[in-house]
Amino acid sequence: MNEIKKAVVLSSGGLDSTTVLAMAADQGFEIYSLSFAYGQRHDFELQAAEKVAVAMGIKRHLIARVDLGSVGGSALTADIAVPKSRSESTMSAEIPVTYVPARNTIFLSYALAWAEVLGAWDIFIGVNAVDYSGYPDCRPEYIQAFETMANLATKAAVEGQGHMTIHTPLIQMTKAQIIQAGTALGVDYGITHSCYDPAPDGRACGCCDACILRKNGFAAAGITDPTPYAG
Amino acid sequence: MNEIKKAVVLSSGGLDSTTVLAMAADQGFEIYSLSFAYGQRHDFELQAAEKVAVAMGIKRHLIARVDLGSVGGSALTADIAVPKSRSESTMSAEIPVTYVPARNTIFLSYALAWAEVLGAWDIFIGVNAVDYSGYPDCRPEYIQAFETMANLATKAAVEGQGHMTIHTPLIQMTKAQIIQAGTALGVDYGITHSCYDPAPDGRACGCCDACILRKNGFAAAGITDPTPYAG
Repeated sequence: MNEIKKAVVLSSGGLDSTTVLAMAADQGFEIYSLSFAYGQRHDFELQAAEKVAVAMGIKRHLIARVDLGSVGGSALTADIAVPKSRSESTMSAEIPVTYVPARNTIFLSYALAWAEVLGAWDIFIGVNAVDYSGYPDCRPEYIQAFETMANLATKAAVEGQGHMTIHTPLIQMTKAQIIQAGTALGVDYGITHSCYDPAPDGRACGCCDACILRKNGFAAAGITDPTPYAG
Repeated sequence: MNEIKKAVVLSSGGLDSTTVLAMAADQGFEIYSLSFAYGQRHDFELQAAEKVAVAMGIKRHLIARVDLGSVGGSALTADIAVPKSRSESTMSAEIPVTYVPARNTIFLSYALAWAEVLGAWDIFIGVNAVDYSGYPDCRPEYIQAFETMANLATKAAVEGQGHMTIHTPLIQMTKAQIIQAGTALGVDYGITHSCYDPAPDGRACGCCDACILRKNGFAAAGITDPTPYAG
């Protein structure tokens, strides 16, 4: 009998990472979901991640407190305006101010630490090189370099107990394809949160980059968007 | 006129990283030192790092709070006994229980984030492959892999503004050579802290792996050890 394989899955409470959770579960992994309190402007993402973990019966959900605010430099953690009502072509042409320096590197490093402690050899992250082409740490060459480094970084890997794999099942998918795949796996997108700049009651603004990608994705997928938008 | 080059230097308040600070300053860098509150058993390391930053006139010293305790797995953060009175040959034959999973990866990731925000292209870390051969993330091949990843991870590097370099000036030095080099640069080792398991008043225990390496290093260097030991 094979032991159940564990996976660490990065979960932001958003549409992409929630789809990844469903994909990892569908592949038979026992899921350990990992979220970060990193000085976000609001707490709705973490609330969504918690709801998702409960709804999906995740084995364990850990929120790690990481101090990205002290290094600064992003509209998601610092006092820089979140851009609104941009077209997808404008978004993809440049690296957005919502880019957080080295964020995925920090997040994957924590996932690596937790994976080693758990005895997990699989890490899932919902990066996407299509919709978020402006983020350098969402590209396949970056993920490959992180995986190479990870297999030189940890005691278990160096001792030859296994090979650490960074899974990026969404990396070449459009938002519409992601929504279709998650819907087929039974994901309830109504409890997920994507908005960068929500209303005080937690409703999505409807006009930041994340909301626009989400709205356009549901429209292109031909699936009704369950998100309660404020605007 | 050239702009002054900035460097992010990881500082633990210990002998090695304090020597690295002196080396980076000697190379003309403007120094931004970075320490971590990561759930250590005690606060003496951070107190030492603060003293060192003041004594060396560091441009800015940042303490980032990172949540390594929640992932567990090490004698430095969890309730596992710190080994005592081991010989150097015993230490180097195995990966010690004081190993923190993915610690250097997490620390370097923060350094990378801060470097990008500061516009720095140089990161210094006092890893050593001689005395600490048991730590996978102290080896040159690991550091090289991290540097490769770092240059794919950040906006500034991807946009071709520069090349991120991870400097490891101590990597092939013995403890005695490190102490001699630091002494030549005027380092006051009396304010540094290496001990894994200090007495309640902060004095070094004198018998954990870190204390033994330090004592032996001073003896081999022919330099008087200024450390006040409890035992």
